[in-house]
Amino acid sequence: MTGSLVVAGLGPGAQELITPEVAAALARATDIVGYMPYVARVAERDGLQRHASDNREELDRAGFALRLAADGRDVVIVSSGDPGVFAMAAALFEAIEAGDPSWRELDIRILPGISAMFAAAARIGAPLGHDFCAINLSDNLKPWETVEKRLRAAAEADFVIALYNPISKARPWQLGRAFELLRGIHPASVPVIFATAVSDPRERIDVVPLGDAEPTRADMRTLVMIGSSQTRLIPRSSGNAFVYTPRFSGAVS
Amino acid sequence: MTGSLVVAGLGPGAQELITPEVAAALARATDIVGYMPYVARVAERDGLQRHASDNREELDRAGFALRLAADGRDVVIVSSGDPGVFAMAAALFEAIEAGDPSWRELDIRILPGISAMFAAAARIGAPLGHDFCAINLSDNLKPWETVEKRLRAAAEADFVIALYNPISKARPWQLGRAFELLRGIHPASVPVIFATAVSDPRERIDVVPLGDAEPTRADMRTLVMIGSSQTRLIPRSSGNAFVYTPRFSGAVS
Repeated sequence: MTGSLVVAGLGPGAQELITPEVAAALARATDIVGYMPYVARVAERDGLQRHASDNREELDRAGFALRLAADGRDVVIVSSGDPGVFAMAAALFEAIEAGDPSWRELDIRILPGISAMFAAAARIGAPLGHDFCAINLSDNLKPWETVEKRLRAAAEADFVIALYNPISKARPWQLGRAFELLRGIHPASVPVIFATAVSDPRERIDVVPLGDAEPTRADMRTLVMIGSSQTRLIPRSSGNAFVYTPRFSGAVS
Repeated sequence: MTGSLVVAGLGPGAQELITPEVAAALARATDIVGYMPYVARVAERDGLQRHASDNREELDRAGFALRLAADGRDVVIVSSGDPGVFAMAAALFEAIEAGDPSWRELDIRILPGISAMFAAAARIGAPLGHDFCAINLSDNLKPWETVEKRLRAAAEADFVIALYNPISKARPWQLGRAFELLRGIHPASVPVIFATAVSDPRERIDVVPLGDAEPTRADMRTLVMIGSSQTRLIPRSSGNAFVYTPRFSGAVS
């Protein structure tokens, strides 16, 4: 009896952004494990068990999936976006390292997906066209001082910055503090992109200058990107301006 | 006569990593434009013209594609990986900004793809499971001093670092200099991942400690990732160790 465990990225929301590799893994799974809204994106069918859990239970969920696979089931843990970016893959390896040694020998595969920042960037141009970084703004698993240090380092070295998990009910002030810190380094004109529910019917994308960026524009489904000093707008007579960061740059002071 | 212009990410190489959205765009294109090996990944068919060019001609290629679209053709510019990450999307917007004002009103869409760093990360675990950055190591379009400043800032703030375009015949010493700089900041034990030709039959992935990292392991198809101080290995009795970066971290000194 040989089970398997796959961690699959479902992308930002639209079916047409799910890779054939992930679709094939979902089609042969006996069990789908994950946070409720992601599990709901996998259609019911005969022979498939869907196990939905709450958002805060990553380690428990990983352990549950590992036990199912060890029992011979073909398990897929579903993540939105890419599973390796602030999602379930790291939690799985934390569980493996701390857990039963036999879990290390299971058939385990991570299947990449379209991460929110690339889906969002594609919608408005090419804001990530030059060096960039991704920061999880949540201070649940690291001290806020570490977040601030990284924001400062990234802005001073003129990276474009993608902020995951910018805001939640339990973390209401962090995004505003981040904008304040960045306004101390960057000109007020640097574009900030609020990309909410990308590729979903509720998609909304706003671009505002850093000087006017208000944290209230973001919610739990928002990806926030802050341009570098080089990020530019190309106005159009119809539709939104394109936003992009050129491939070239000068010296960083 | 209304043409269209799509910039599509073909992912790292395997067909099963191409999104249905990109596959549909390729199926309806009249013209495929791009660097030769990427154009070669799109099968010939009646009614399709394939225009392959050299690697160094991004701006010319973008202008050519824009003129075709303005003439009413349905054009797809193909990129490997994600088109917004050190690829054709930024070059396209540079051409649009400098070019004919009517180009801004064309039907232009960017379609995301699986970027090399996520494909590589998925193959060995979850090295990008915590805050990370992506740096184009080429100093063709920016001063080498800017690259060094960003490497130093990223390592001091303890980001995982993904290096695109680490080495080429014309840029033989930069990767070695980058390792040297990083060894001055990180412990010698920090894992370095050399991921070459991911998802292709020639795929090869090596993990070595930073202290032993040799630039000669990389070629033009290699993505290099340098762990943070927290990146960990999980040894297995069969196969390579898993490499991952936990979701939590302490204060950064």
